[in-house]
Amino acid sequence: MQALVLFSGGIDSTTCLALAVKKYGAGEVMALSVSYGQKHFRELESAEKIAAYYGVKHQKLDLQPIFVGSDCSLLTSSSKEIPKETYSEQLKKTGGNPVTTYVPFRNGLFLSCAASIALSNGCSEIWYGAHGDDAAGNAYPDCSDEFNEAIGRAIYLGSGNVLHIEAPFIGKSKSQVVAEGLKINVPYKLTWSCYEGSKKPCMLCGTCRDRIAAFKANGLTDPILEG
Amino acid sequence: MQALVLFSGGIDSTTCLALAVKKYGAGEVMALSVSYGQKHFRELESAEKIAAYYGVKHQKLDLQPIFVGSDCSLLTSSSKEIPKETYSEQLKKTGGNPVTTYVPFRNGLFLSCAASIALSNGCSEIWYGAHGDDAAGNAYPDCSDEFNEAIGRAIYLGSGNVLHIEAPFIGKSKSQVVAEGLKINVPYKLTWSCYEGSKKPCMLCGTCRDRIAAFKANGLTDPILEG
Repeated sequence: MQALVLFSGGIDSTTCLALAVKKYGAGEVMALSVSYGQKHFRELESAEKIAAYYGVKHQKLDLQPIFVGSDCSLLTSSSKEIPKETYSEQLKKTGGNPVTTYVPFRNGLFLSCAASIALSNGCSEIWYGAHGDDAAGNAYPDCSDEFNEAIGRAIYLGSGNVLHIEAPFIGKSKSQVVAEGLKINVPYKLTWSCYEGSKKPCMLCGTCRDRIAAFKANGLTDPILEG
Repeated sequence: MQALVLFSGGIDSTTCLALAVKKYGAGEVMALSVSYGQKHFRELESAEKIAAYYGVKHQKLDLQPIFVGSDCSLLTSSSKEIPKETYSEQLKKTGGNPVTTYVPFRNGLFLSCAASIALSNGCSEIWYGAHGDDAAGNAYPDCSDEFNEAIGRAIYLGSGNVLHIEAPFIGKSKSQVVAEGLKINVPYKLTWSCYEGSKKPCMLCGTCRDRIAAFKANGLTDPILEG
C-alpha cells in the first residue's frame, strides 16, 4: 500500500482521495474515516459509498471517548448550537479565536492516527485535504500552513524518516479544490458536508455555505441540492 | 485542570507525574494511560495504583484498533519475540533503524490524544517522560529532541496557541530521571517496565536492563527486584 487518505466523505477529502487514486491506483490507496461524536455522522455513510465507488480499502476508527468533556458545538454531547453564519462572521464574534465548531486538535489527532495506521500497513504517504479557506483567520488553527508543516515534520521524524504528508490543497481555496475535482469527475453528489445531522443539508451552517459558494464560483449549483 | 501527564506506569512517566503533582498539586493534574495491545498491559495495573497513590484523576483510553496489522514485537498480535538484549546491541542488528519494540508513531499518537483530551479538560500543559536514552541511535525515533520540538510546535499551533509540552527529561539519561525521582520519594516499587507480560520482570529485555542499570548508577537495587 502506498498512500493512506484521511477521508471524511466531504468535498475536500473526496477530491484528495480521487487524486491519490489517480496517482497510484485503487489497490495502492486506503481511506481512513473517523467517528468522533460528530452531529453529522451521516458523513460516514457518504464516505462508505465513495470508498466503494473508488474501490479502495476503507478503515473506520471510533475516537469518541477522546472528546468526552469537550463542549465543541460540532459534537452530539454539546449543548451549543452550530452557528448559522459564514466563517468570517463567526470570527468577528470569536475575536480571532477558533470557531465553536473547532474540534480540539482534531487534525493533529487524525493525522497521528493516520501515521500509526499507515506505518502498520506499509504506506509511506498520508494525504489530507486541508485548504486555505479553513485556515483563514484562525477559524481552524489545525488547518494552517504552519501547522501542516510542523505536524509533517513531527510525523517524518517520529516515523524514523519514513512518512510524508501530502496536502495538495494547502494554500488553495475551496473553489479551487472543486475546480480540480471537476476535471477528474469526482462524484460530488455522493459527498456530505453539512454539520447538522438532518437528511437534507441545512444550507446555513459555515460548511454548507462554503460548498455552495465553491460550486457557484465554478459556475455550478452544488449537486447535493439537486435532489 | 492545569496539566495532563502521559502515564504508562513506568519509571519515566511516574517521575514525570510526581514532578507535575509537586508543581501544581494533585487536583490540577490528570493522568492518561493508553492500552494499545501491549504484551505488558500489566503496566496499566501499576498506573492505576500510582494514580491512586498520588490522588490524581486517571483517564484510560483504548487504542488497540489502531495497531491492527502492525508486526511490532511489543504487541500481543505480533509473532515476533521481544529482544533480550540491550538497545545498543539491538541497534547493531537493525543497522540504525528503529528497534522491533518501536510501536508505529506511538508517542506522536499518544501526545495528539493527550492534546485533544487536555483541551477538552481545560489543561494548558501536556507532560511526558521521553528521555535521551530512548532516543539514542534512532532506537525510538519518536523520543528524540527533534521530534519533541516538532510535535510541540504542531500541538501549540494546532491548538490555537494554547497547549505547551513539558518534557522535563529530554536530554537526560534514565539514571538522571531516577536520581530526580528519588529526591521526591517516587514510589518506584509500584512501577512496571518489563515488556514481557509475566508476573515478575524478565530482567533481560531492553527496558528491564535499562531500569536495573539506572538504579545501579544511583547506588541502588531496582526496588521491583526486592520482592
